[in-house]
Amino acid sequence: MNNKIMPRKLAGFWELEPEKEMLFEEMIDKIKSVFAKHCFMPLDTPAMELSEILLAKSGGDVDKEVYRFTKGSTDACLRYDLTVPLARFVAANENNLAFPFKRFQIGKVYRGERPQKGRFREFYQCDADVIGDGELSLVNDAECVKLYKDVFDEFNLKGQVKVSNRKVLFGLAKALGLEEKFGDIAIIMDKLDKIGEQNVEEQLSEIGCSNTDAEKLIKLTKISGYEDAIEKASCLSNDEEFVCGLNELKNVVSYVRAMGLGEDDFVLDFGVIRGHNYYTGTVFEAYVDGCSGAVGGGGRYENLAEYFTDRKLPGVGMSIGMSRLFDYLDQSGYFGDEVKSATQVAIIPLGDTLLDCLNTCAKLQANGVKAEVFAENKSFKSKMKEANRKRASYALIMGEDEVKNCVFALKNMSTGEQESLTEQQLLNKF
Amino acid sequence: MNNKIMPRKLAGFWELEPEKEMLFEEMIDKIKSVFAKHCFMPLDTPAMELSEILLAKSGGDVDKEVYRFTKGSTDACLRYDLTVPLARFVAANENNLAFPFKRFQIGKVYRGERPQKGRFREFYQCDADVIGDGELSLVNDAECVKLYKDVFDEFNLKGQVKVSNRKVLFGLAKALGLEEKFGDIAIIMDKLDKIGEQNVEEQLSEIGCSNTDAEKLIKLTKISGYEDAIEKASCLSNDEEFVCGLNELKNVVSYVRAMGLGEDDFVLDFGVIRGHNYYTGTVFEAYVDGCSGAVGGGGRYENLAEYFTDRKLPGVGMSIGMSRLFDYLDQSGYFGDEVKSATQVAIIPLGDTLLDCLNTCAKLQANGVKAEVFAENKSFKSKMKEANRKRASYALIMGEDEVKNCVFALKNMSTGEQESLTEQQLLNKF
Repeated sequence: MNNKIMPRKLAGFWELEPEKEMLFEEMIDKIKSVFAKHCFMPLDTPAMELSEILLAKSGGDVDKEVYRFTKGSTDACLRYDLTVPLARFVAANENNLAFPFKRFQIGKVYRGERPQKGRFREFYQCDADVIGDGELSLVNDAECVKLYKDVFDEFNLKGQVKVSNRKVLFGLAKALGLEEKFGDIAIIMDKLDKIGEQNVEEQLSEIGCSNTDAEKLIKLTKISGYEDAIEKASCLSNDEEFVCGLNELKNVVSYVRAMGLGEDDFVLDFGVIRGHNYYTGTVFEAYVDGCSGAVGGGGRYENLAEYFTDRKLPGVGMSIGMSRLFDYLDQSGYFGDEVKSATQVAIIPLGDTLLDCLNTCAKLQANGVKAEVFAENKSFKSKMKEANRKRASYALIMGEDEVKNCVFALKNMSTGEQESLTEQQLLNKF
Repeated sequence: MNNKIMPRKLAGFWELEPEKEMLFEEMIDKIKSVFAKHCFMPLDTPAMELSEILLAKSGGDVDKEVYRFTKGSTDACLRYDLTVPLARFVAANENNLAFPFKRFQIGKVYRGERPQKGRFREFYQCDADVIGDGELSLVNDAECVKLYKDVFDEFNLKGQVKVSNRKVLFGLAKALGLEEKFGDIAIIMDKLDKIGEQNVEEQLSEIGCSNTDAEKLIKLTKISGYEDAIEKASCLSNDEEFVCGLNELKNVVSYVRAMGLGEDDFVLDFGVIRGHNYYTGTVFEAYVDGCSGAVGGGGRYENLAEYFTDRKLPGVGMSIGMSRLFDYLDQSGYFGDEVKSATQVAIIPLGDTLLDCLNTCAKLQANGVKAEVFAENKSFKSKMKEANRKRASYALIMGEDEVKNCVFALKNMSTGEQESLTEQQLLNKF
């Protein structure tokens, strides 16, 4: 039989080896516990939506990248983010939900783009959003910032959230008569860190900003700090929108301070813009010390579900870049060496003791111990090797004499020490 | 704006309201903990595979039901089960994996069939499999049975696993000269419970079984019990395969007994056949008292990845019907009333106390309490109503006097009782 099929997966699709997957799930569980403490509820939407729904507000790249297909009379797409499904869910259930509605979702999304380093066609998104009915307190914006802080604490990470408000830059642009061009301005200025001041000025001039205006805009984005930064910025304009944005920031700062965040944990930074024109108020990006690029971002949007309902549903949301966070945790040694194994106790029969091994294994498992019997027909030596390879914490060697005398020989696989225990001592050990 | 889009999801796609989703995830976590105790590792494969891979061993219904599409030069399908991806993964990593390889996977699969009651186009599968290299001890078959027992215990369910071995029926058919027809025979006899003895006899006669032969086959499938059942069955044939199947069952019984399973927990039942011709040895089905239909099933298969590799990789696997189990748990009151809320403590500001509320909320969350501040601009009355609707366990009402005097008024939302606590007492309360 030589017509075998190459067992390959699709290019650009992520798949962790089981040892890494254990760690990834540990990370997910910890993030979930943070969302739970903040009273966010889980949502699990289908991976597919009707194309009419999914593409309602998209365009450009999304249309090109989306996986779309028909089956019978159904025209469907794989979701490319978790926000459109949230909008569909909230609009469909607007009369049954308690607002503000706080949900989180950790799920895979699909983008048929060219795979690149760090860019996948299938990847996890992790979003937490709060949706209000008509209006929504800025406390929720502050809570998004606090969520990052709690996630950082959960993983013993040092990090900082940079916070701004889109109304501030928009108000300044408006005061300069550049209101119409704001979409482009935001996209260009979001690249400041990447392409540098000169290139930004050039690109701004290409869309018709004067040098003086460009300098004023850039000046704003260089301001950072706390209450002092708000004061410093306030000299730049007295446009109504501008002032409103600064006042919102003032409130958000007072809320995050009340939540216990210190100046290590957050900073106002008018350089945070977020390319997405979706955002209309508070915007933020979360950074971890030592990790290049943001591990998350988000912000406030005016109206989640305008394509589906007349009801005004403002929201604010934060997201976490799961693969970036995981890679950082993994590489920085967060997961340590000790808990990497699925097997705590490898039970190794020696002689005719298989049934006794199974019995002991069941007792250990009943006590919550991750135990397994190495029952295959292999040599004792190869089983000990196997226990090592699986990084089992302990090997329990059960020979016929041990069974007869009810003695349990437990070997610590990292120190090599071996002790003799009674059954009760063994069960109490874990 | 009246050209709104109806926010509807695709027909036949499951989506739980967040309150139910919390319970569903609680169920998943408990099942995962059982797999972990048995040292199974998690695997998370992509939702899509190359069509060449996915359809390698399929045919008939699968080809019709699968969601298949092309994107650029890629011809891909959504997975219709978790076994083909497992086979692809194991074959691709055969030189890096430690065998026996024990993995579980809980993930969604996709079938574009006509939606019916209890049948979905997207649904969760939950599989645990052990794959051996060349051979695989029957201890693993017994462990699958034990997994059900431990899942039942985890949910305080009474249930029983019915165990058989396909070699027994096959051996009997062979002894009767019906070897060639065994595939059809198994499919027909698997329907015994549904269509009754007479219909089975008729269908068997249609494919050329004599009445005497049909009676012999049916006689076997009526035998059930323990060691006695093996003895009873052994009179029916001395075909080599038949005897081998009985011996395998004898071993499996001794293993599950050693694992502590009693006669309430399992039974041999030669009526268990499993329609799928994939199975070659041990087969089993798991039943929960009071729940109609099996909540799971599985068995032994000779060669997992024969389409991808020459290496012989026998396996045994069990699966759990997630929506059936969930519906049963939910309807039988398993989840109770108390823990259904995402909110333990609803903090309600009264007067100008918002910042104090945020501060207290952060302290409660830091102690692991699921707390949130009701910060929206609504009346006290409507906030209390909201706390009720969210089934918060407690309301913490923080008026200006309370804040001044450092007194915390905590109201038990189910009893209506209210107590006054110091901050320390409040934090110690949970």
